[in-house]
Amino acid sequence: MNKDMDRDKTVKELAHWLDVSVEGNLETVIHDVASLDAATESDVSFLDSERHLASALSSRAGCLLVPEKMAPIPGRTVLKVRNPRYAMARMIGLFHPPMEPTRTIHPTALIGKNTEIVDDVCIDVNVVIGDGVKIGRGSCVEANCVLGDGVILGEQCHLDPRVTIYAHTRIGNRVVFHSGCVIGSPGFGYVFERGRYHAFPQIGTVEIGDDVEIGSNTTVDRGALGPTRIGTGTKIDNLVQVGHNVEIGEHCVIAAQTGISGSAVIEDYVTMAGQVGVGDQARIQKGAIIGGQAGVLPHKVARAGQPLWGTPARPLKEFLKQQAVLIRMPKILREKKSREEEKSAKTDPAPRGKKDRLE
Amino acid sequence: MNKDMDRDKTVKELAHWLDVSVEGNLETVIHDVASLDAATESDVSFLDSERHLASALSSRAGCLLVPEKMAPIPGRTVLKVRNPRYAMARMIGLFHPPMEPTRTIHPTALIGKNTEIVDDVCIDVNVVIGDGVKIGRGSCVEANCVLGDGVILGEQCHLDPRVTIYAHTRIGNRVVFHSGCVIGSPGFGYVFERGRYHAFPQIGTVEIGDDVEIGSNTTVDRGALGPTRIGTGTKIDNLVQVGHNVEIGEHCVIAAQTGISGSAVIEDYVTMAGQVGVGDQARIQKGAIIGGQAGVLPHKVARAGQPLWGTPARPLKEFLKQQAVLIRMPKILREKKSREEEKSAKTDPAPRGKKDRLE
Amino acid sequence: MNKDMDRDKTVKELAHWLDVSVEGNLETVIHDVASLDAATESDVSFLDSERHLASALSSRAGCLLVPEKMAPIPGRTVLKVRNPRYAMARMIGLFHPPMEPTRTIHPTALIGKNTEIVDDVCIDVNVVIGDGVKIGRGSCVEANCVLGDGVILGEQCHLDPRVTIYAHTRIGNRVVFHSGCVIGSPGFGYVFERGRYHAFPQIGTVEIGDDVEIGSNTTVDRGALGPTRIGTGTKIDNLVQVGHNVEIGEHCVIAAQTGISGSAVIEDYVTMAGQVGVGDQARIQKGAIIGGQAGVLPHKVARAGQPLWGTPARPLKEFLKQQAVLIRMPKILREKKSREEEKSAKTDPAPRGKKDRLE
Repeated sequence: MNKDMDRDKTVKELAHWLDVSVEGNLETVIHDVASLDAATESDVSFLDSERHLASALSSRAGCLLVPEKMAPIPGRTVLKVRNPRYAMARMIGLFHPPMEPTRTIHPTALIGKNTEIVDDVCIDVNVVIGDGVKIGRGSCVEANCVLGDGVILGEQCHLDPRVTIYAHTRIGNRVVFHSGCVIGSPGFGYVFERGRYHAFPQIGTVEIGDDVEIGSNTTVDRGALGPTRIGTGTKIDNLVQVGHNVEIGEHCVIAAQTGISGSAVIEDYVTMAGQVGVGDQARIQKGAIIGGQAGVLPHKVARAGQPLWGTPARPLKEFLKQQAVLIRMPKILREKKSREEEKSAKTDPAPRGKKDRLE
Repeated sequence: MNKDMDRDKTVKELAHWLDVSVEGNLETVIHDVASLDAATESDVSFLDSERHLASALSSRAGCLLVPEKMAPIPGRTVLKVRNPRYAMARMIGLFHPPMEPTRTIHPTALIGKNTEIVDDVCIDVNVVIGDGVKIGRGSCVEANCVLGDGVILGEQCHLDPRVTIYAHTRIGNRVVFHSGCVIGSPGFGYVFERGRYHAFPQIGTVEIGDDVEIGSNTTVDRGALGPTRIGTGTKIDNLVQVGHNVEIGEHCVIAAQTGISGSAVIEDYVTMAGQVGVGDQARIQKGAIIGGQAGVLPHKVARAGQPLWGTPARPLKEFLKQQAVLIRMPKILREKKSREEEKSAKTDPAPRGKKDRLE
Repeated sequence: MNKDMDRDKTVKELAHWLDVSVEGNLETVIHDVASLDAATESDVSFLDSERHLASALSSRAGCLLVPEKMAPIPGRTVLKVRNPRYAMARMIGLFHPPMEPTRTIHPTALIGKNTEIVDDVCIDVNVVIGDGVKIGRGSCVEANCVLGDGVILGEQCHLDPRVTIYAHTRIGNRVVFHSGCVIGSPGFGYVFERGRYHAFPQIGTVEIGDDVEIGSNTTVDRGALGPTRIGTGTKIDNLVQVGHNVEIGEHCVIAAQTGISGSAVIEDYVTMAGQVGVGDQARIQKGAIIGGQAGVLPHKVARAGQPLWGTPARPLKEFLKQQAVLIRMPKILREKKSREEEKSAKTDPAPRGKKDRLE
């Protein structure tokens, strides 16, 4: 974290910028952001809830972003905000504005015919761009990316190095791709005939809305017929697999290594933890929350707003009850056995003695 | 899906081309292929079985590929075929023939010494090819791929952009690699000695048969000693891990994010769903079917033709029975408890009253 | 496995080189290394323990590395070593020394300003290196890698083709990266505010110790604030996900497709099998062993030295007991049911007869 003295602010200035109330020393000078434990007197930090009060008290941070309704912290300079994490995100943006990429097309970049590429874009070293590609204002394509023919990339998008976008993928505005992700590769579709698998040609596309973010080495397959879709505002982590003709709604959060099989539907505002598996043609309704490593069966409908866990995935409460039983069962069976042995010993000691000898 | 009017066909022509019987309007002109719900009057579509009859009836498709034994659909033009999905795959190939890559070696490609590269190949932008590499007729290596020394690539292979093939990998004919896959990286083998792990040098190779397809960002490690093998006709999805010295037979289908540990053997015609884990030296016998997220233990043998599920993986029937029990257990225990409490209340009410007071 | 006659050794020479005792024919000439089943009379092979004695007896290997305390194998030439696998690793290194990369900077490589790159490094075709990068003696960066601004790479490191290292990552000595891995991509951190997710800017870094190895297509995210850390000697397999601010200790072994969520701590000498999931802020204490596909809950502490399995992960013994019960339960319930039916038949035969008729 580089410090830049030109970006020094007083707490008063920060309070004004965030438009919030302040308690403590308004003249404290803040240079940078930091986590509670790493912060110094010139850093601003944050706590999400009173649960972290102890960490806050032991922190050396010169200024703390705290929840509005929190009781005052004696001797501390605090900014009272509605959503401390969001305020912290804004603070980081203030002290660490993202680097402006150089708006040029590098001479090593290879660009196809009939493209529409606006002047102020950045196309970096060794980028390969196919015929008929359109790239919107302010978009940036970093080193060694490959964009197939007919790709449409909106405005203010950012492709980190080594991203592949297959032909005819359509991408909205402000979409971010991390290194190594692959968008629009042929889906996994075969027909078994005469003892072998034949490719079912995958002639669909991928359509991605605005403000989507896609993680490193994640793969999104194009549709077999028709598109695979990812809705506006959805965030996808690293190493996720999105199968052909999947439809993901808006503002979903999908954690690392999750796999979504072909033609599954993920409605808006769904949250999926890591390593979740979703079977083909399953539907995850709006706002459902799928726990880590859960497996949703093919064709299954996961109900709106409901948390699920386990494989096969079931309502969280049921899963926990079943786990609780499973944990108690060895003891229950042990007790049952000893009761039976007791009973058996009382009524018929001989067989038991015999059994002992055999052991 | 681009339409190309030169490719218009009448239903009669399609019937003739597929060599099948037709019912309905032979003169209907077909421009393209589509799924049942997206099809228009000039599209051909298909249904796999009578289960999708409702969708077929509401589809506007001008022509339907249907199973041979299916009852006639009133007012519909149908082509009766043995395997509708396979016929549809052929239709897609007819209306959307794969683009012929330009048969050239791009000037930015860097090619090593002593290579044997046939004239009609395509080697695209920024491809890097090592010494002694052989590439067969009609093969195509897209942008930014890297092939190590001594790689042997057969005929009619296709490497999508950004594929890595490590040195000395041997690949058959008509093998397809999707973007970002890595073939022949060193396996994960270490020896613990004097408090630290030392690499066990991985000097084996990878051998891939004909007609194999390997998904985006999938990784196949080379053998420690001797080869890792993938048999003819096997199809591997995205983000799959194949460990060192694994042997995969012919005509297997391995879905996304599955991981196969070192020295495991997957015999012919095995089907593995997504996110399956196979332990080292396990053997999956011919035709076995492994359910999603199942975990096959190291050294375990999964019997031929048998479906398995769960972790540790067990025969599907057993797994389902155990799941059914698990689901019923909370209720069974609740009932047992209330019976016991009833009994206890009858024989000795005092302790129960005492317990109630304590609560 | 190429043979190189200059590397021929007698068993006597090998015994001397390893400084161990020998039994059998000291003059046997060894050309190469091989596994027990593939070995010929001129190969050295090894067996880890007496369990593999049968394979050793049927092997044609001219020389065997065997455990010190093992009984003599009649008619066999053996070298008695403390750790046969380690001795074999050394033998492989002797007969197959790693190729020395050409110490040059390829003219197609693009190198930024103010870099510190020692003379004897290898920077291969199309490599892109940012401003202010430092590369230590003897390090090698293969084709199509991208190193962001300010990356610090130690001595004797090796980057296989197509690796991405994001800006400001700090890497120790002798670190190996396999193809397609991505180090330092932005972590998965968002704040939900006004109906949508906003990026929590990820301004931290990644710090990697000495002698680390990172597998193909593995992803390591940089910290949100502060670093993500991987300790000296730790080995990470393919397709592993390491989230932001994770701290991995020294000499850990993490198998393929494992995912470690943000801010989790993995202490020294931990072993994780494949496809393990670790929740955010979990702590895996020193020497713990996590079984394949296990899922460690967020904030959970896995105790030192203990084997864990299952999701949610629990001590291995408990998991196995619970599995054993689960396997027996269908039978137990069946027996219970038939006992109850018997009893019921004795006391009140009518309803049972009625039930039979209904079935």
